[in-house]
Formats: sequence, C-alpha cells, structure tokens
Amino acid sequence: MEPLQLNSGSPSLKIIPLGGLEQIGMNITAFEYDDTIVVVDCGLAFPEDEMFGIDLVIPDVCYLKENAHKVKGFVITHGHEDHIGALPYVLKELPVPVYATKLTMGIIDHKLEEHGLSNQIKRKVVKFGQHINLGQLRIEFIKTNHSIVDAAALAIYSPAGIVVHTGDFKVDYTPVYGDAIDLQRFGELGKKGVLALMCDSTNAERPGFTQSEKTVGHTFDNIFAEHTKTRLIIATFASNVDRVQQIINSACKYGRKVVVEGRSMVNIIDTASSLGYLDIPQNTLIDIERIKDYPDEKTVIITTGSQGESMAALSRMASGQHRKVSIGPLDTVIFSSNPIPGNEKAVSKVINELYAKGADVIFQDAHVSGHACREEIKLIYNLVRPKYVVPVHGEYRHLKAQASLAKELGYSSDEIFILHSGDVLELNEEGTARVAGKVPVGSIFVDGLGVGDVGNIVMRDRQHLAEDGIFIVVLALDTYNSMLVSGPDIVSRGFVYVRESDELMEEAKDVVIVEVERCLERGITDWSKMKNVIKDSISDLLWKRTKRRPMILPIIMEV
Amino acid sequence: MEPLQLNSGSPSLKIIPLGGLEQIGMNITAFEYDDTIVVVDCGLAFPEDEMFGIDLVIPDVCYLKENAHKVKGFVITHGHEDHIGALPYVLKELPVPVYATKLTMGIIDHKLEEHGLSNQIKRKVVKFGQHINLGQLRIEFIKTNHSIVDAAALAIYSPAGIVVHTGDFKVDYTPVYGDAIDLQRFGELGKKGVLALMCDSTNAERPGFTQSEKTVGHTFDNIFAEHTKTRLIIATFASNVDRVQQIINSACKYGRKVVVEGRSMVNIIDTASSLGYLDIPQNTLIDIERIKDYPDEKTVIITTGSQGESMAALSRMASGQHRKVSIGPLDTVIFSSNPIPGNEKAVSKVINELYAKGADVIFQDAHVSGHACREEIKLIYNLVRPKYVVPVHGEYRHLKAQASLAKELGYSSDEIFILHSGDVLELNEEGTARVAGKVPVGSIFVDGLGVGDVGNIVMRDRQHLAEDGIFIVVLALDTYNSMLVSGPDIVSRGFVYVRESDELMEEAKDVVIVEVERCLERGITDWSKMKNVIKDSISDLLWKRTKRRPMILPIIMEV
Repeated sequence: MEPLQLNSGSPSLKIIPLGGLEQIGMNITAFEYDDTIVVVDCGLAFPEDEMFGIDLVIPDVCYLKENAHKVKGFVITHGHEDHIGALPYVLKELPVPVYATKLTMGIIDHKLEEHGLSNQIKRKVVKFGQHINLGQLRIEFIKTNHSIVDAAALAIYSPAGIVVHTGDFKVDYTPVYGDAIDLQRFGELGKKGVLALMCDSTNAERPGFTQSEKTVGHTFDNIFAEHTKTRLIIATFASNVDRVQQIINSACKYGRKVVVEGRSMVNIIDTASSLGYLDIPQNTLIDIERIKDYPDEKTVIITTGSQGESMAALSRMASGQHRKVSIGPLDTVIFSSNPIPGNEKAVSKVINELYAKGADVIFQDAHVSGHACREEIKLIYNLVRPKYVVPVHGEYRHLKAQASLAKELGYSSDEIFILHSGDVLELNEEGTARVAGKVPVGSIFVDGLGVGDVGNIVMRDRQHLAEDGIFIVVLALDTYNSMLVSGPDIVSRGFVYVRESDELMEEAKDVVIVEVERCLERGITDWSKMKNVIKDSISDLLWKRTKRRPMILPIIMEV
Repeated sequence: MEPLQLNSGSPSLKIIPLGGLEQIGMNITAFEYDDTIVVVDCGLAFPEDEMFGIDLVIPDVCYLKENAHKVKGFVITHGHEDHIGALPYVLKELPVPVYATKLTMGIIDHKLEEHGLSNQIKRKVVKFGQHINLGQLRIEFIKTNHSIVDAAALAIYSPAGIVVHTGDFKVDYTPVYGDAIDLQRFGELGKKGVLALMCDSTNAERPGFTQSEKTVGHTFDNIFAEHTKTRLIIATFASNVDRVQQIINSACKYGRKVVVEGRSMVNIIDTASSLGYLDIPQNTLIDIERIKDYPDEKTVIITTGSQGESMAALSRMASGQHRKVSIGPLDTVIFSSNPIPGNEKAVSKVINELYAKGADVIFQDAHVSGHACREEIKLIYNLVRPKYVVPVHGEYRHLKAQASLAKELGYSSDEIFILHSGDVLELNEEGTARVAGKVPVGSIFVDGLGVGDVGNIVMRDRQHLAEDGIFIVVLALDTYNSMLVSGPDIVSRGFVYVRESDELMEEAKDVVIVEVERCLERGITDWSKMKNVIKDSISDLLWKRTKRRPMILPIIMEV
C-alpha cells in the first residue's frame, strides 16, 4: 500500500471509497478537500459463507482515524444496514456528527441507543432541498425513491466542482409515501454543470425500468381478494415501510386484523409510525397473543424471514419452532421479496417446509426492486450530464455494466472511473480527474463481543477445522531424564468416528512413540522441533489412510 | 422407522424411493414385486454448505442389502452424476448387473474402471425400444431428450400393471443428436393403460415449453459471427455432449481451432467421440499446449467451471492460477449454463474476476434447460393418462408444483402421491394404491477414502469447530499424590488471536487451577467429573468475556 501522495498545487477534491466497491454492502466513501473530510454512509457487510462464526463485517477506517481532525461528519443516504450498520462501531472510535433525513435518523437513533451511544453523538435531521456546510464542503439532500422511504441523493459542492451521488435509488413516479424522485433538481444541477456522477449500479445489468412500488399494492389486493378462506402470512424486508403500508391498506380493505412478527419488523414499524411514515387505522394491529381470537381468514401476519434467515420468524414458523404461530393447510404464505444472491437455497428450504406443512406458497410477482434498471440510469445521466462517471454500489460486474451503459451514452474510457476500495480519485479545479494514490482499506470481523480479534489466522484455522477436524497428540516428558512419562494420548474431534477407528488411533500412537524416542535418543530438547516431527509423520499416516488433512496439534507437557 | 408390513394377499407392486425426493440429487428408486427388486438409478448428491469437508453424499441402501437376494439389477435412465454417481459405492456392496443405453454405459464404464470394479460387474447395453426381463418385472427403454444424449424413460411392466418413469427429460422436436422423444410410444402405452406415471418435476414451476437445444447453436453462431477479434472461452457442463457438438460446429464454420480443457470435459468427450456421439472433423481439436501457435481470434476453448466450482478450469483461469491460459482483454467468456441454485455467488465471483482481468463476459441466452416445463409435462400426462400420479425428481416445492398441475388436469388428491424417501407405495392388481409402510433410508457421507465414517457426531463437531474454534486445557496430575504436576496449559485454535489475548488466557488458567484444586481437595478422582467442572467454568468465563462458545476440551494426563 503506497502512502497517499498529497497534491502539491492547489487543493483538489478527493473521492476515496473505503468499502462498497467490488462487493455488496459496506458502503462508505470519504470526500476530502483540503482540511475537510465528509464521509457518505457507513455500512456493514454480511459475512460470506466461508467466514465461519462471523456476525458481521465492518470497514477498516484507519484512514479516517489518521485524519480524524479533518472529519466533519457522516452524511447518510438512507437507513439500510449496508449504509448505516457500521455506524455504532465507527462512531465509538470517531465520535463526529451524523446528518440524515428523518426516518433514516430514527433508525440510526435506535441503533445508537442499543450501543449506548445516544448521548455521545451529535445528530442533525436534514430536509430534502436543505444544504449543510461541513468545512469546505457543502452537502445538499435530494429526494429519491428506494425500497425504504426518505432515501436521499447527495450533491456535494466543492471548490473543484459538484459531485452528485445518487445513493441507492429508483425512479418511482407513483410512490406509496411522499414525492417522486426530484428529477427537476437533478436536471437543474446538470444545467449548472456537474463534475462527477456516482450512480447506483445494482441493477445496471437489467434492461428497462423498475416497476413502481404501487404495483405490489395491486398484487396484494388481488391476493387478498382471491384468498378469502385462509390466513395470510406475508414475509418482506423489515425496512420496507411502504410495503408494510400497502399490506395494511389491503388488510383494512378486506377486513383483516394485522399482526406484526419479528423483532426488526416490530422495531422499524414502531419507528416509522411514531415518525408519521405509516398510517395505521385504529383497531387494525393486534398483538400476536390475540390472533387465536380471530378466524384464520380474518388475519394477516407481516413477518421477517423473507430471505430464509434461519433465526427469523418465518423460518421458525416453517420449521415448527415458532411459539405462537403454527403453519397448516389454512395458511397462504406470500414472499414479498426476491432472494438476494446467495440466499436462494435458504429461501427454497423454507418454501419446502411450508409446503410440507400443507400451506400454500406464493413467491412470484409480489415484489419490485428498489434499484434503478438501465433506462432509469440513462435518465439520470441525461439529466445530470456529468463530466466524469464513477459507478458505485455493486460487485465488479455491476460497475462494469454501468460503465458500458455510459459508453453507450457517449462517454469515453478516460471519463469513466471504475474504482477499487482505497483508490483516491482526484478531481481538480481545472476539471481533470485521475486516480492519484491509494489509502489502506480492509474488512474487520465482528464476532460476538469481539471487533477485530478474529483475523486471517483465526479464520484460516476455523476453515481448516471445519474441513477435516482436529487431531491432538498429548504427551508428558520428563525433561530431566529425557523420557516419555505419560502418553501419547490422542484426542480427535471432527475427524473420524473414533469408536470405529481404534486401529488407526493405535497406529498413530505407535508412530508417535517411535518418533519421540528417536528424537530423545538423538538428544533433541527443542520441543518445537519434536512437534514438527510428530506433525509430519502423523500427517503422512492420516493422508495415506484417509485422504484427509485434519489440523494436527502436538502438545508436550514438561513434568 | 416401522418395519415394512408385508402384504398378506396376492403380491403387489411396491415403489420405494430410497432417495431423490425432497432434494436435488441422490435419485434411486426400488421397484419390488414378490421376489424381484429392480432399482432405477443410483445417484449421488453434492454436499450442502453445512456439510463441511464432505466430498459427496450417497444413499443408504440398507433396504437393498437386506433384500440382496431379490435385487436383479440397476436400470439407469441417463449418465448424470445424480443418477449414476453412487453406483461404484453401492455396487461394491451389492454386485448386481447394470442396464443402460450406450453412452450412459460408456460413462459408467469409466467410473467403474476408476474404482477398480470393471471386471466384477456385469453390464448390458440396452437399445431404445428394447425390453429386458428381470425376474417378475420387465423393463422397456424409451427414447427421450435431455441435456445429455441417450437419456431414457422406462416402462416397468408388472403383473399389477405398467408404471412409466420419465427419467429426466424434455421434449425436443429438433434435437442435435439422434431422434426426438418417442411421443408415439408414450401414447401407445397410454392406450394400453398405465397404472402410474412418475414424471420429472424439476421445472414443474415454470410455465410454457423448454426451448430446443438447437436454439443454443444459433446463439453460438451469432456469438462467433460478432466476436471476430477475441479468443472465445465457453464454459458448460462436461456431460452436455450436444452442447459441445454445437460449439465444434460453430468453430468449424468460423474457422477456429478447438481446445478442450478440464478433466471431466476431456473424459466425456473421449467417451462420447469414441462411441460415435460426437462428430469432430479432423484438424479441429488442438492440444492446449499448441494454443499459443494460433492467433486469439482463431481459437475457442471449451471448459468446465460453468458453476463457479473453485477447482474447475474456468475458475483457475479467472483467478490467474491456470498454468496454460491467462485471461485478458482479448478474451470473450461465455457461460453456456445457468447457475444451479446455491451456486449463484460462486458464479458471480468468477464473472467479477473475469471482468477485472479485462475480459468480456456473456452470461445470458447461451443455455437452455434439460428439463420439461409445465406444458411439456401436460403433454406427457395427456399421452400416458396414468391412473395414478407420482411426481419425482426435485425438492418438495417442485413435486408440489407437479401435483397442482395434475389437479389442473383433473386428478383428485387421492390419485396423486407425493412420496417421501422411504415411503412404500403399494399398487395391487385391483388397481388400488396406498402408502403402505416405510423402509429405512438415509444419507452417507463420503470424505476422502472414508465412506460413512463421518456421521452426525463428527459433522456436529466440525460445525462447532467452524463456528468458534477450540479451546484446549491440558494438565498433568500425579494420581498417587493427587496433585497437579504440570499445566494447566492452554492451546486454542480458531477462537481468538492468542497473542492479543494474554489476559483472557491467564484468567482461564487461574479458573482451571482453582477448580482443579477444589476437586482434588474434595478427593474427586473421577477425571470425567473433573473435566466437566473445567468445561463448565471455562465456558461461563469465555461466554462472559467474548459471547462465543468454542469447543472446550479438557485433557488430563496421569503421571
């Protein structure tokens, strides 16, 4: 990692993604001008399959910590975990102010409270159209649409020019709550002249337009109209307040009581309704305890678990482990969601379990995406007409798809920057752009209470242990007389079924005895040498007999 | 598991799936009449994510072994791993004859050779239309279409009636090799009267028809015509001989040499071309060593790895670990495949890596499924018009989808049997059907050389080790004087980064010393009791400090 070369001439605007590129999640980007750093978003990533035991992954913000005196605050585009989830961890080390729209801040408030940070962090709710001055940068919040209300795009004003960051967005002309995306403002900024556009790439591979959230409402109405004899259970993302609103609307229309189930769903609905983002008529919500007082066909349960998460409410219902809801032939379960890549099998497992319990399952057409497809992205490009293009939010394939879209619109390769996390994109007042260096970036594992104490070594060990288990050889040596006084004892876990492997275990013991005695005869008193000899000989034996490579752990006790 | 109730009256036909229901893979079904058992297919399943270290999963055939004297042979529908992969393991314990069509047998031959079984197993190649008598059952092979050539449906004739088993199939009116599915014969059998239809459910959720394999040939032609300046790398399933044929056809048409890469791809192409299923013009294939003698735009590489399998050729190319092929901007990579559920992320990883190396990637429209969609399934139902319906091949959701399709066609619930593995479906001469019992079934893990030595206990240990690692406490006790003579020593792996956890480790040692001395004072000489005390106290300490639960392993050496 080369150190960041500071610009020698007049200051330039530096855009430094500290995460979120080449991956889904962990969105965080620093905007730096002279002695000002403003950070856009501070998200977490969910662990990959091979990150055993990890609860979540947060960005390494050492660059921000080193430049802590410059950091004026976090500006948050919307309230999804991949944009706010790392805030409590990062704010503990870097207690700077946070700026966000009302619902976004409501969700952040709840998070900070859980981490006992409520009184330590300054927070300011920002309205759409409002500008905030942070050092030498000015930030404007612009209304967009997304699968969570109150999502914002940002215009970042610097002496070098304006950068527009879309956040996660779609174009919804008929949103459920509030206004459509402020396309006029995108156009106005474009007319003024925009230096760079950082645009959501999630759906950049998909042609056409993403449908309006309202279309899902119509689908719900149809489902409610057609299923008049069963209970309805609708699983969706907790944070999709508009979706919840539409379920409530249909429930009222068709005379059903609504039960909300799943901790995160209850939390968000509390926050959203107390802030006025949800309109729930009186006597609509009932407590889950009271569901048995109503006939099945008069209730609907809104629940978490649409991604097949094993501990979520729907999964517990499907596997018969939910204390309040048991699934049967009088249930119709609707997945108001698409599986996020990687969750397909988990979702399928839940669907199979629901079917096996006799429920009917609907998993098509009750969802729309929250991200812009190609035609919407083109619309934004045409309104903003930036000088430079920086695709953000997505894996490399998605960034690449947006880059080729930009080429279709006439941009040349040197106007398009597919950045890697850590790249420093420098935009100066003469209007030139270049990747001018790299800052250190990384991922930090959170496991239980530990933040960062599980690193690569521990993770490699977990992966090795998972693959073939552990084979422990313990022996006690009389160091004075150089003789074996106890053992070798062999203990294995996760390797073979020991009770049926007597022969192999005896053979291993014999090998160890031979090797240890040979070492002692040769006067070897360097136990690490002896351990290596044991490791190698046991490793050979086990590979020959089983074609497996368990972790081999010799332990020598000195007596 | 209740023992199978034998029928007291006249013998009935029993259909006993020993795997393959409620899951993808491990297809194996016993057909039993009186003293005859014929087994259809003998497939493996690939391990689920949480089956750490497992190479493959095979069915437990204890029911067949108990009834070995009745088993007349295996009848194989086609050469895919989920239908033949367990054969070598099962045939070792149950060396009965195998019946299959020519290419299917060619692939089986190769497999048995690898396992050193070539001389021990009787094999008979069967032609379409041919009938074979096996005890009291007669089996007819019927031509179908699938993503591997020589796929067969089976008509199973018993005194109780005829059962039609489709195998995996689609309806392809314009197949690449050989004839279209023998719809006439399905119709003829239907006219005769079919007792039960066991039909492929894989695509039973999908509306419409699956496209002909030939459409992929047209796509290839277009891709070859449009990409005249880059090397082409096409990844597909090794066993899809027709797909390979079409790539070769396009290569010849557009003047490119063909390289075949990936062990399984080379094997199948050898087998298929030696048996006459592939038509490869002379001077078309070149060795991978010679690829550098030709300009990029004059070569095409056919490779394995279309599912993102980490050790397959394409993945090694993408990650820069392939010794012969390095990817760059002069490569166009085509995924002639769809990700199998569960492989989406692995495939995406490969796509990202290819893009990052500058290659162009095409991952749409160069594939068709090998399984029948809803309209094709309806066609088979209309030709066969069975009395009973037994959906096979797929997860519960797929079986359920076929069941509702059957209901649309007028079948009632008591004519449709969604079976579970182990169910015994009894069809008697009076034409009645019922699930009459259950036989034991199960999955056996293959890990390296071990078949079945990794069971639930070992697997649970691997999962525990993966989650939070292991924490080992070793101590040596003088059993005569009841005193601690060495230790406690603490060794952990996969738990925390030890060098930064001195304090915790010291604390743990202190806890152990206190507990051991307390035990010794109280005169406890039952080491398992002492171990439990250590386990509990350490477990409490670690949970309090880290919110993790590593496996805790106390080892006491007696000196």
